[in-house]
Amino acid sequence: MDDIEIEAVAEADLSDAVLIEGLPGVGNVGKLAVEHLLEEFEEAQLVRRVYADVFPPQVSIEDGVAELTHTEIHAVETPGDGPDLLLLTGDHQSQSNEGHYHLTDAFLDIAEEFGVEQVFALGGVPTGELVDEPSVLGAVADDARIEELEDADVEFRDGEPAGGIVGVSGLMLGLGSRRGLDATCLMGETSGYLVDPQSAQVVIEVLQQLLDFEVDFEALEDRAEEMKEVAGKIQEMQQQQQSIASDDDLRYIG
Amino acid sequence: MDDIEIEAVAEADLSDAVLIEGLPGVGNVGKLAVEHLLEEFEEAQLVRRVYADVFPPQVSIEDGVAELTHTEIHAVETPGDGPDLLLLTGDHQSQSNEGHYHLTDAFLDIAEEFGVEQVFALGGVPTGELVDEPSVLGAVADDARIEELEDADVEFRDGEPAGGIVGVSGLMLGLGSRRGLDATCLMGETSGYLVDPQSAQVVIEVLQQLLDFEVDFEALEDRAEEMKEVAGKIQEMQQQQQSIASDDDLRYIG
Amino acid sequence: MDDIEIEAVAEADLSDAVLIEGLPGVGNVGKLAVEHLLEEFEEAQLVRRVYADVFPPQVSIEDGVAELTHTEIHAVETPGDGPDLLLLTGDHQSQSNEGHYHLTDAFLDIAEEFGVEQVFALGGVPTGELVDEPSVLGAVADDARIEELEDADVEFRDGEPAGGIVGVSGLMLGLGSRRGLDATCLMGETSGYLVDPQSAQVVIEVLQQLLDFEVDFEALEDRAEEMKEVAGKIQEMQQQQQSIASDDDLRYIG
Amino acid sequence: MDDIEIEAVAEADLSDAVLIEGLPGVGNVGKLAVEHLLEEFEEAQLVRRVYADVFPPQVSIEDGVAELTHTEIHAVETPGDGPDLLLLTGDHQSQSNEGHYHLTDAFLDIAEEFGVEQVFALGGVPTGELVDEPSVLGAVADDARIEELEDADVEFRDGEPAGGIVGVSGLMLGLGSRRGLDATCLMGETSGYLVDPQSAQVVIEVLQQLLDFEVDFEALEDRAEEMKEVAGKIQEMQQQQQSIASDDDLRYIG
Repeated sequence: MDDIEIEAVAEADLSDAVLIEGLPGVGNVGKLAVEHLLEEFEEAQLVRRVYADVFPPQVSIEDGVAELTHTEIHAVETPGDGPDLLLLTGDHQSQSNEGHYHLTDAFLDIAEEFGVEQVFALGGVPTGELVDEPSVLGAVADDARIEELEDADVEFRDGEPAGGIVGVSGLMLGLGSRRGLDATCLMGETSGYLVDPQSAQVVIEVLQQLLDFEVDFEALEDRAEEMKEVAGKIQEMQQQQQSIASDDDLRYIG
Repeated sequence: MDDIEIEAVAEADLSDAVLIEGLPGVGNVGKLAVEHLLEEFEEAQLVRRVYADVFPPQVSIEDGVAELTHTEIHAVETPGDGPDLLLLTGDHQSQSNEGHYHLTDAFLDIAEEFGVEQVFALGGVPTGELVDEPSVLGAVADDARIEELEDADVEFRDGEPAGGIVGVSGLMLGLGSRRGLDATCLMGETSGYLVDPQSAQVVIEVLQQLLDFEVDFEALEDRAEEMKEVAGKIQEMQQQQQSIASDDDLRYIG
Repeated sequence: MDDIEIEAVAEADLSDAVLIEGLPGVGNVGKLAVEHLLEEFEEAQLVRRVYADVFPPQVSIEDGVAELTHTEIHAVETPGDGPDLLLLTGDHQSQSNEGHYHLTDAFLDIAEEFGVEQVFALGGVPTGELVDEPSVLGAVADDARIEELEDADVEFRDGEPAGGIVGVSGLMLGLGSRRGLDATCLMGETSGYLVDPQSAQVVIEVLQQLLDFEVDFEALEDRAEEMKEVAGKIQEMQQQQQSIASDDDLRYIG
Repeated sequence: MDDIEIEAVAEADLSDAVLIEGLPGVGNVGKLAVEHLLEEFEEAQLVRRVYADVFPPQVSIEDGVAELTHTEIHAVETPGDGPDLLLLTGDHQSQSNEGHYHLTDAFLDIAEEFGVEQVFALGGVPTGELVDEPSVLGAVADDARIEELEDADVEFRDGEPAGGIVGVSGLMLGLGSRRGLDATCLMGETSGYLVDPQSAQVVIEVLQQLLDFEVDFEALEDRAEEMKEVAGKIQEMQQQQQSIASDDDLRYIG
């Protein structure tokens, strides 16, 4: 196996294709968003797998069958007038610094192979607390895009995200722009503590406005409900632990 | 020395050879199993050594003589009708992420050189507690194999092993299957705390059914007895420490 | 993107150019110094960007626009008779050991492209406490330079800096000298706890003597005043915390 | 600079040369031994410097002059009938796993360039406590050498050194033997807590027997005296701390 190996699974003839990347990250917002799109677009077709020696050296098991760590790219010929989509997701990011650069280059090579000129990197920005109505923050390679994004409810806040954008999503902007691609990062606000389907939904809602497609959100809303229950239980447990601690303090002083 | 160097020590003309890999891991189950086969098959002949700059930079010493870290592959022309065997073991795995991939590729290159079409990766799956009658869990590259393995008492449990399979054993499945090899991982249940000869034995018993060979188990059973004694003493010591701790608690409150 | 990629942004015809390097380090002395020179020399022109897979895989965001981690080199055709300047700075150093060597080589390649024969690496040397009147310590590739530097108020103290000089500044000396370049490291004394504009200023004052240029220091002096206030507040907070701790001790014994 | 760069400083016509390696390690025994030989053999001539991107990216400073991290090899045309010597030492070992292998290969390439057929790697073996009369333990690439070494007072103890030999000294044996070189590791017993000139001396005494040379030991004996004083003071301080701790216990219970 080469250091990075691209397996051509199938071909697709896409028009005006846009790459949408959603790898694991804060709140898994990007990954949840892309996985939701893969479920909702029945016509999604696996076109490429990317294997790399910088991925964790492991296989995942499902129904007893092993699968080597990889990133998948699916092609979607969308029903409407909007652009076709290349959806990129996986379970892992690079385990090495240099690997992030070289993997992102491989992903952009594949995108350019399909004629892609516009790239969206999806992720989460941590707020440190549960957010009722998460906003979508943006970052771009070229400021000419900002107005159109603000019209689609993307917020550009001064000094945010603090610390920039790390990992493949950041490199999609950085390396994508150096290739002359139109690159945008959309980040849903999320606590940072839990996987966040609600944040994934608001990010897709922005994409729907920009790319003129429409998907159903019931599956994501159900998962958001589940997460709200989980979050509630965690808060209960934390309060119980704090009261026990107070009791312990009393006994100690006594 | 090249990054990975394969030393051809001898040649062997094998028919219908099967690779069996047993490197250090959970409970050292795979390593113990392969070492036991090497002891029992007197006709085992060292054919290859693999050196690599991703192995720990060290030599082991035996009778004052140094040996550079390496993986060994022995060829066994088995007495019966069953396939011949290529037995792979060593004291260390790769120290780097990328190294796991490239070493496994080297091992599979050697296997293919000997006409191998089927690969077994042996290991342990940790249960967290001592197990009286360990089962053997399985994972495959191709689900067509599952039935035959279940007939040989291999269990396929939903969601296990949790977290997939990490290291060379997992890559044997992942990279092996991408080369069109028939790859299976057999994992004996083990506590995860101790080296486990009993678990190694049940794994070999499965292999015996599948590959039509037979070995004696006395040496492994003796080691299993020793380990039971060691496990017993550790439990005693832990109970003593806990009672001392209780006494300390009493003195503290007093 | 290659492992190290040099982007030629513009060209400049420099005479007798000197490279001045100021990357992040102790007290950020070198970085502050070069950034100050970039502000003061209006004629500074960006000539090169250096990208590398050993830089953190991230983009910084300013006004919503992303920029991939890189090192910048600006050319300054200085007004007076002194040499022209190549000013090198950035937000990050290499994240890998080998990367430090290869990046420094790339920086020196660029310097040689512009006919540079003399190199200054700027940094800080930590004293462990706030210093009222920081000195500038020196280290050279060739002892023939020591006298001229001492005349410019650079101090060469026996055994300092203890532990040598680590990172790109040290390699500027080491690799620069092996290329036959005249290389000097100037290190302003600094506490090591805070970013230190005052230390940056004394380093520039030495450079002014050596390279016959002149800049205004008001901006740096303003920042030094701010840092003095910050340092004062931190000392207050520490004293308050210590007195609270003492009270706690009393309550415990009581 | 290449990944590993060998600088030819001078040439020497050696007869029957033997390589003696002493890099930093346990008790710095090997390094002290080789540095002592370099002081005692006035005719020692620097022939090679080895630079590498796996060495720490730093320069050491002496009298204000910087020197890039490197390993040095000196040639000694010894006065007597014994073999000439190639003495290898430095301040650092590789910072990466793979680097140990590639550096050792570079060192052995240089040795073979000078017609070396025999290699001695010097080091320390930690005993965990101060040793009055340290022995020298041995390990070889070829057991044919054991008898001659035992005649020179080298001890071969079963199971020692436990854990084998790690780093360049171990690889000198492992890679040296794979090149057909006669390789021996001599390890002086040492506490492991302190630099140990006495252990370095006993190792050199063995080499004197084997290689028919003679050096004076006064400088090493002086340093051994200093270390004994330092060791004594450390023991005093530890005893004082323990008695203070006991007093604290009494106050606590009271």
